[in-house]
Amino acid sequence: MSKQQNPQAADTAIPDHIDPTVAKQYPSLAESTVSREVVYEGRFLKVRKDVARMPDGSTNTREFIMHPGAAAMVPIDADGRILIERQFRYGPGRVYVEIPAGKKDPGETSLETAKRELVEETGYRARRWAHLTRIHPAIGFADEVMDIYLARDLEKVERSLDVGEFVEIEWVTLGWLVDELRAHRLLDVKTQIAVHWLQRFDDGSLPWPTFDL
Amino acid sequence: MSKQQNPQAADTAIPDHIDPTVAKQYPSLAESTVSREVVYEGRFLKVRKDVARMPDGSTNTREFIMHPGAAAMVPIDADGRILIERQFRYGPGRVYVEIPAGKKDPGETSLETAKRELVEETGYRARRWAHLTRIHPAIGFADEVMDIYLARDLEKVERSLDVGEFVEIEWVTLGWLVDELRAHRLLDVKTQIAVHWLQRFDDGSLPWPTFDL
Repeated sequence: MSKQQNPQAADTAIPDHIDPTVAKQYPSLAESTVSREVVYEGRFLKVRKDVARMPDGSTNTREFIMHPGAAAMVPIDADGRILIERQFRYGPGRVYVEIPAGKKDPGETSLETAKRELVEETGYRARRWAHLTRIHPAIGFADEVMDIYLARDLEKVERSLDVGEFVEIEWVTLGWLVDELRAHRLLDVKTQIAVHWLQRFDDGSLPWPTFDL
Repeated sequence: MSKQQNPQAADTAIPDHIDPTVAKQYPSLAESTVSREVVYEGRFLKVRKDVARMPDGSTNTREFIMHPGAAAMVPIDADGRILIERQFRYGPGRVYVEIPAGKKDPGETSLETAKRELVEETGYRARRWAHLTRIHPAIGFADEVMDIYLARDLEKVERSLDVGEFVEIEWVTLGWLVDELRAHRLLDVKTQIAVHWLQRFDDGSLPWPTFDL
């Protein structure tokens, strides 16, 4: 694709995405950008194809999905039950048990995304939030960063699913989720990771994070 | 992109990827394919852009990365130490602590991929293998499925990194990995998930899987 056809391909339009301290900390591993181009921009996906300088001075093509970032959350009610979703995911072509999640809108912090998505997808608003952890789900081919939160003190509000979103919600126990995990049925990584941490909080081997957000 | 420009766009060239039993099990959630097209095929990434039928009969665009599948493994030595890698990942632009992993070559099973990648990336061969679990890392925009294995009885052989691969290996203890996890520094999902399971095997709260592969 020529630069005439794709105005976003101009190098100056795309900022450098690599923290310069990485090269200082890892001189034998870090790569740097020689040129950058957005080679595909569809309805949802944006593909970068760069030429990168390797640690030994050679160059290689590097492709990745430019992702806006995402937030997920574990909504927990007063009885300790957890709100999960069942949703068909078209790429893998199957239905998953998932904690609610969504992509950042432009300018949002991940906590703002989490609060918005919880209302939109489930029809609940939470009064107290804690940060659980951060994950990078697909480091081999995407720059996605996802923050996972815990949400308590829930109140029912109006749900507003996006067009093309079909989501069923269900309250389950942590015990049920742990059984699903041990049966190797929690295939979605954000959900599996959240349940691993929740087990530790629940059995007292790790303290609950502070709900101060 | 017209079908003339892209011979792979012909519907008949791309098999249906959705198991028909999903629609029977989840009639209110399952989507089906109206038309399918490969809209971008680069050096590593392949993007599908389909028109899909929603459960309510409407149609929507669905884009995703067609991924060949992958395998990761936890190499464990006679003293219980674990072999990790440090590798710069260009998309997120940083260096990660990771268990070794790689994409399937055409026709490979995930166990064959795991055995090949362990030798290529680390220069070790393992005599005993166990299946740890399966994860779907990016269900929102990719069809990737990754199997994670445990590998024991290691012997040193010759390493053969691919062109453009710069990987440092290091033997670490499970205790060190757990400290990294609790400090929220194990950002890579396959590595974090493996360490969560290993902790359970190590403290006796779950039995080790059988090394019969």
